[in-house]
Amino acid sequence: MLNRHPTATASLTRIVGAVSAGRSTAGQEIAAAKDRIAEADGEIAAFLRKAPAESLELAAAATGPLAGVAIGVKDIYDTRDMASENGSSIYAGHRPVTDAALVSMARVAGAAIIGKTTTTEFASLDPTPTRNPRNLDHTPGGSSSGSAAAVAAGMIPLAFGSQTGGSVIRPASFCGVAALKPSFRLLPTVGMKTFSYTLDTAGFFAATAEDLALATRLLTGRDLVEGPFGEGGGLRVGIYRSSVDDNVDAEMHAAVEAAAQLLERSGARIVEVEEPAALAEARASHETVQGFEAVMALSDEFRNHRNSLGPKLGAVLDQGAAITPGDYDVARRAARIGRKAASSLFETVDVLIAPSALGPAPKGLESTGDALMNKLWTLTGNPVVNVPGFASSAGLPLGVSVVARFGRDARALAAAALLQDLIAGQ
Amino acid sequence: MLNRHPTATASLTRIVGAVSAGRSTAGQEIAAAKDRIAEADGEIAAFLRKAPAESLELAAAATGPLAGVAIGVKDIYDTRDMASENGSSIYAGHRPVTDAALVSMARVAGAAIIGKTTTTEFASLDPTPTRNPRNLDHTPGGSSSGSAAAVAAGMIPLAFGSQTGGSVIRPASFCGVAALKPSFRLLPTVGMKTFSYTLDTAGFFAATAEDLALATRLLTGRDLVEGPFGEGGGLRVGIYRSSVDDNVDAEMHAAVEAAAQLLERSGARIVEVEEPAALAEARASHETVQGFEAVMALSDEFRNHRNSLGPKLGAVLDQGAAITPGDYDVARRAARIGRKAASSLFETVDVLIAPSALGPAPKGLESTGDALMNKLWTLTGNPVVNVPGFASSAGLPLGVSVVARFGRDARALAAAALLQDLIAGQ
Repeated sequence: MLNRHPTATASLTRIVGAVSAGRSTAGQEIAAAKDRIAEADGEIAAFLRKAPAESLELAAAATGPLAGVAIGVKDIYDTRDMASENGSSIYAGHRPVTDAALVSMARVAGAAIIGKTTTTEFASLDPTPTRNPRNLDHTPGGSSSGSAAAVAAGMIPLAFGSQTGGSVIRPASFCGVAALKPSFRLLPTVGMKTFSYTLDTAGFFAATAEDLALATRLLTGRDLVEGPFGEGGGLRVGIYRSSVDDNVDAEMHAAVEAAAQLLERSGARIVEVEEPAALAEARASHETVQGFEAVMALSDEFRNHRNSLGPKLGAVLDQGAAITPGDYDVARRAARIGRKAASSLFETVDVLIAPSALGPAPKGLESTGDALMNKLWTLTGNPVVNVPGFASSAGLPLGVSVVARFGRDARALAAAALLQDLIAGQ
Repeated sequence: MLNRHPTATASLTRIVGAVSAGRSTAGQEIAAAKDRIAEADGEIAAFLRKAPAESLELAAAATGPLAGVAIGVKDIYDTRDMASENGSSIYAGHRPVTDAALVSMARVAGAAIIGKTTTTEFASLDPTPTRNPRNLDHTPGGSSSGSAAAVAAGMIPLAFGSQTGGSVIRPASFCGVAALKPSFRLLPTVGMKTFSYTLDTAGFFAATAEDLALATRLLTGRDLVEGPFGEGGGLRVGIYRSSVDDNVDAEMHAAVEAAAQLLERSGARIVEVEEPAALAEARASHETVQGFEAVMALSDEFRNHRNSLGPKLGAVLDQGAAITPGDYDVARRAARIGRKAASSLFETVDVLIAPSALGPAPKGLESTGDALMNKLWTLTGNPVVNVPGFASSAGLPLGVSVVARFGRDARALAAAALLQDLIAGQ
């Protein structure tokens, strides 16, 4: 049996239940989150800035379904009451006129936007000072570094991030929290700084897959009901064998096998699914799509502020500038073919499971790790949930991805919740 | 023979040729555009604000392929050197940190961003004070009102607009200028205020389809070479008979028939294409897609500034707020099916021709007209070029749309250039 690590402690499901039942108040829950941040964030450095008192007073009086839920928001989302700097000196002190769509929707639902969390520059690769709460000497991953770390440290029950390559699922795996990278465009990205407009995807971090489902339901008004797979219920699970699995370390492979065994014992049917060539080609096209679009999306920053960009982002854009429209069109075609191939995978299985990262969080803060296991599903737009619970021999989290068909976010969340319960119940 | 109206007088092709050949300079061309604006815009009111002198001095020294080309930019595009107000008091005086992607790309290519042009509020329906240069008592159309009018009045050779329903092609038809609503995502919309993220499309206005092709080529680095259809060259043209054609007035129908005759005489083969049911359903789904997304995209403005919104936009958002996720999903499915049906249309024809509007520009400035003839192609993402040249008995322009398969912008532009030449040569 693999090691386990504990679930993050701030439970969205508990808070929503307690506030709606009158056992707690929004003000109490927000104050508790503030206290936890004050206590823990000194050594984690997940937060860049805290909400002004007036905003939290308003949130304490809110009555919506997310009342009392303190949300940390990655600093590439616009916020009307706090600076929004995109991890870049170019935007130092920048105050948007309006909230990003998702931020506004969260406020409408009664949530408290409690602060802005760290992001690599423009959600790319240059690291932040944020530390991994499971081991301070390790990266939390990126680009949604602060959001993953803040939830993992139990400071807040919900955080917003974004993924263009692997920026939600990878830090969730490294930090040992649940995370949803939903179907492309399930959540609006308006007011989120653009890096690559066919890839950028808003996503959530929470303690559990159950919390993620609840947050998504309350924010979008969608049912998101599926299953129950509680007793296995005929769930068909494919272990996804990709063409890049050789890069995955042994403990991560073991975590995926252990997940399959737990699911099988619960009644699920397990099959092996070999990656079709179209999906290997789609993965290989990700970098071209991303680089070409980033050069346009960040045209002003690249042309007028090249010298103030971080070295990793600068290199990404230099390479992107060499991509021709013809190269891009070829890559986009591979992506389109890949989306169809991804749909076909789910004709014989309900969900796929796969490694959420190459292994545990790398040591040091110089790199946020590798998005190799994530970027295919970002490109195809399939929903992915990171399931936490397993740990390496060194005690670092190892996340398992649950992937479903495009638009079947409810299925991915339900299967992930089942798997998370099975891991916790070992 | 139908009446004709003259081509707009500022020629991008001439300016690019003259500057590159040393017969003119960027500075001279920019100064000439400034003079034309100073002379004409008093009664047209196409411009909201002019570029600062420093920006134009920099542009006068530019050496890129668009050097000397003065561009008017719809005020929903971010500009680093001018306020960007989105047609809304909510953004009064707002100065973005960086240029929108397309604005930056234009500057990189050497163009002069000479000023910001009027837009209806958030590119929706509440009219601007801009007048139609062909008849001051008539609307220029919207939402890209100022961009269409500024090119029509001969003030500038190129203007940027955007289309979510019919906001490029309709004002181009009303004002008698060429315009390109390209394939969805051919041009980046980053830094353009979002209304509906699966519909918003950046587009261009110029005197001729030839100018549009040159501008698009120089801005995107794409070849965009097609044809030549000069001698008819076997061009297969379908007259598109839609399920809403009964709403089109007799003179506009006559313009499309006249276009077909001119093309046939030039050697093209003309066929009739009846609208398939899937495309009638797709058109009917546009409003639901747009309304649902607009409520999310403008969440903050809608929730916090409802009373300062114009009455037409307010009504659009009120209706949008009543759309359920289930309704939206049904509409999105109709759109997806519609995109496939649209592609099938082009298995037997190279381009379709259709009315660009219900008729000439309506009298008065209270309404910007109807997008009924445009919104299907916005939803499907097919490229559309408005071909000017025909006029009503009252002398108001009547535009003909040339539509091509998704991604075949070059084909739409080449066929439109042929048609525009044929109309002018009558």
